Amino acid sequence: MEGFRVLEIKKSVFESNDREADKLREELKKDRTFLLNLMSSPGSGKTTTLKATIAALKDEFKIGVMEADIDSDVDAATIEKTGAKVIQLHTGGMCHLDAGMTKQGLEGLDVNDVDLAILENVGNLVCPAEFDTGAVKNAMILSVPEGDDKPLKYPLMFSICDVLLINKIDVLPYFDFSIENCEKYVKRLNPNIKIIPICARTGEGIDEWADWLRTETKKWIEE
Amino acid sequence: MEGFRVLEIKKSVFESNDREADKLREELKKDRTFLLNLMSSPGSGKTTTLKATIAALKDEFKIGVMEADIDSDVDAATIEKTGAKVIQLHTGGMCHLDAGMTKQGLEGLDVNDVDLAILENVGNLVCPAEFDTGAVKNAMILSVPEGDDKPLKYPLMFSICDVLLINKIDVLPYFDFSIENCEKYVKRLNPNIKIIPICARTGEGIDEWADWLRTETKKWIEE
Repeated sequence: MEGFRVLEIKKSVFESNDREADKLREELKKDRTFLLNLMSSPGSGKTTTLKATIAALKDEFKIGVMEADIDSDVDAATIEKTGAKVIQLHTGGMCHLDAGMTKQGLEGLDVNDVDLAILENVGNLVCPAEFDTGAVKNAMILSVPEGDDKPLKYPLMFSICDVLLINKIDVLPYFDFSIENCEKYVKRLNPNIKIIPICARTGEGIDEWADWLRTETKKWIEE
Repeated sequence: MEGFRVLEIKKSVFESNDREADKLREELKKDRTFLLNLMSSPGSGKTTTLKATIAALKDEFKIGVMEADIDSDVDAATIEKTGAKVIQLHTGGMCHLDAGMTKQGLEGLDVNDVDLAILENVGNLVCPAEFDTGAVKNAMILSVPEGDDKPLKYPLMFSICDVLLINKIDVLPYFDFSIENCEKYVKRLNPNIKIIPICARTGEGIDEWADWLRTETKKWIEE
């Protein structure tokens, strides 16, 4: 085991997060690195989805993952086993990542040779939605056990994402979750969002998600 | 339908939240109102648990519920059907409630005749843990689909709670969740926490939870 780095990230000192985020995107463009910001509630399956995503795309892109958590290294340890480059970011109690913190993470990970960088944000449907991390695209996961009414309660998160993955569709029979209702609520907030039902554990829907991510990554690093 | 009030709560202006929280508890003691602060991730079953709790205790106590959400009134509408007094609090994007905001909610609900007031906090395992709401006791829900590793990732939340309800135990066969591991992680952070496995939907474990809440409420309002 090679081990991975654990980085204690510091509070950002920049006055305008939006300006920092735009600057970070410019740098990423120059470096030909695509950055995806992946958000969700705690326990909706971000890390399992990442494992499936890495398995689907690792032969095409050099992938690097930043695992942000208040505490613990369990996610970085899981991702390390996939062979992808990984760093654990500790937010020191902070409930989200902004562009300055993401930049620290990218430097810690060293993305010079990375085509596709993925930030697994802190599990939280509220605060991460308010801060542009500098990512090229935002994706979120809503899992079936959380309920189809979540877009009504956390509208900003659903509004700012380019893709919504509805995860854990294998347990649909055991929960009152209507994909149709969920899509209706989400599209009202965000008509252009792409919605992909998946089951990260069984691999269902991962092809469609990997296709989307492949297309967006290529567009960014090749144009 | 009588309808419930929707209150847009304002940011608190107090310098010390801890001091405000202590003051609020003193007022609650004088009013003989017990306040429970109920926290969890989005979608772990706070509202369903509340419904079962109200059904178990409504003949013994006058119950009042504050439903805090960034947006929407779906939870207050659900609770209203139980016959309990209810108010919907909109946090205006804020990710938690502090003591000043809780006080606004209690005033909006009017707890003069309430024995047991329950605050359903914003669905979030991070920020609500950092702010004393003035509640007499803190409870949290972790649901089985979220995974047994959550105490490792959100340690503060598990540290400040008096009770942990492990909800949705009816779906244990479909998820990799070890109650034993979960308890081990939680007790390491918080040896005195009471852990009760429940299924709010089927009623399993609700008796034990209602017993705990009954005892604590009586202790507070009768002593």
